[in-house]
Amino acid sequence: MVKNFQDILDMAKNKERKIVSVAAAHDKGVLKAVKQAKDEGIIKPILVGDKNKIELLAREIEFDLEDIRILDVEGDKEISREATKLVSSGQADILMKGLVGTSTILSQALDREIGIRGDGIISQVAAFDLKTYPKMLFVTDPAMNIAPTLEQKEGIIKNAVLLTKALNIENPKVAALAAVEDINDKMQATLDARDLQKSCEAGNIPGCTVSGPLALDNAISLESAKLKDIPGEVAGQADILLVPDIEAGNILYKSLTFLAGADSAGIIIGTSAPMVLTSRADDHKAKFNSIALAVLLADSLNK
Amino acid sequence: MVKNFQDILDMAKNKERKIVSVAAAHDKGVLKAVKQAKDEGIIKPILVGDKNKIELLAREIEFDLEDIRILDVEGDKEISREATKLVSSGQADILMKGLVGTSTILSQALDREIGIRGDGIISQVAAFDLKTYPKMLFVTDPAMNIAPTLEQKEGIIKNAVLLTKALNIENPKVAALAAVEDINDKMQATLDARDLQKSCEAGNIPGCTVSGPLALDNAISLESAKLKDIPGEVAGQADILLVPDIEAGNILYKSLTFLAGADSAGIIIGTSAPMVLTSRADDHKAKFNSIALAVLLADSLNK
Repeated sequence: MVKNFQDILDMAKNKERKIVSVAAAHDKGVLKAVKQAKDEGIIKPILVGDKNKIELLAREIEFDLEDIRILDVEGDKEISREATKLVSSGQADILMKGLVGTSTILSQALDREIGIRGDGIISQVAAFDLKTYPKMLFVTDPAMNIAPTLEQKEGIIKNAVLLTKALNIENPKVAALAAVEDINDKMQATLDARDLQKSCEAGNIPGCTVSGPLALDNAISLESAKLKDIPGEVAGQADILLVPDIEAGNILYKSLTFLAGADSAGIIIGTSAPMVLTSRADDHKAKFNSIALAVLLADSLNK
Repeated sequence: MVKNFQDILDMAKNKERKIVSVAAAHDKGVLKAVKQAKDEGIIKPILVGDKNKIELLAREIEFDLEDIRILDVEGDKEISREATKLVSSGQADILMKGLVGTSTILSQALDREIGIRGDGIISQVAAFDLKTYPKMLFVTDPAMNIAPTLEQKEGIIKNAVLLTKALNIENPKVAALAAVEDINDKMQATLDARDLQKSCEAGNIPGCTVSGPLALDNAISLESAKLKDIPGEVAGQADILLVPDIEAGNILYKSLTFLAGADSAGIIIGTSAPMVLTSRADDHKAKFNSIALAVLLADSLNK
């Protein structure tokens, strides 16, 4: 069982170092996370951005750049483009967003010529290490897809399963969340959740067990699930929480990080190489955790 | 500033005792909460339901029923009806749901003849006492309205303001939540949040300050709000969180209770008298906290 980010780091240390292309590395939090990941032996970075600023900030945090490749590039779009090309050309394994807007780097990453588009849907998976839950908890998709259709939700689950597989979590338990456990025609989330469970039972979402609709308490509390007589192996011990839409997902993400005191990480899946796409509000620890996740996913995808 | 449920209890103790009509009181958790509220001097209960069971359970928890009025009624619908009539006839100030289904008691409470319908929308407000937030945090509506319209959201905010007013929270800060801070035509929550702020600025939602759209972190973390340069007095210090829909609200409610370790309470507002409508999963502490909230609201509404 993967209990926390230390377990994930320990696993990442047993893999070959991955090369991370950092877009707009001229940011202290980003450099701190990159330095830590390099010091832990899990990555080798390539820094793209304002070289002078990068060197200045690196000195402040005692980050020795001697062996580090730096591409001195100007302009957010150009920086994102060069960083992306390092990945699409095979020179790097992971793309990391630094001090650049999400839409700017995404438009390059999803560019049909130089990008790293995959075949399916692109989604975010957030990972949480909570004192109040005995194992890692994954939430998807809190950031990329606004109001996914049933088909898109299947793809979102498949992406999350790629990540849990990379973490050696066998047959993850997926809770398709809604506000209630009962099917209600007026609540699309309950219909989708039921259909996702059926689709999984029919073999269309392999490598996991999907159950739904489940309210959050019945997904993560065995006591609640028992009290309400919720059947199935997912209830009370979910690994992955599929949220109905971006509002529910983002609010859950923020509540776990800011009010439940969780350590967190975020990763984009569905591109041909993993992307670390944390926000400015995330501290360097979250960025570092995200790199560790990306290392494991990149390793698993390359097999 | 109201910091926690102890503050709320202290305030309730300074009011006249309220009479609570308990529908289906034959439940240990419900009786425990009622006993505690009676012992604290904030209520006088009338117990409706299976008298034998009530007496049996009361003995188990050493609840002396000598001065307590008990209505021996059979059948969930009849119990709910009698309990509601006690309130609509003015014999009780508060209606409390015991061991009976939510829809069963609501259909009686909203009955046009014997019910306690109000003029506006009916909504739930949940209250949270969190170690990670310096004051009480209110969330609305996590339970009653599935996908409220803009107009309904205005009513939901007004109901929450009735409650904060009863708690002497002057001009509460209301954050209209969304997944992002920017207006996005594809995200109805952001449009509604913007319109709610405008409507409040135009004087249509008196007694509070509404700001939106705000992501949850920018609503409750001053640091996040500062980092993202979010203007206004609400950012980082919201009292009331208006959620976009029932899924986001329910998931937030459950995450605060089950993963952030919050003490909680829930109350229905918009009926002519407050309703305590907690779920089976809520412990007796949550039920007790809810009674204390209802006492303050009933006191404020009767003025």
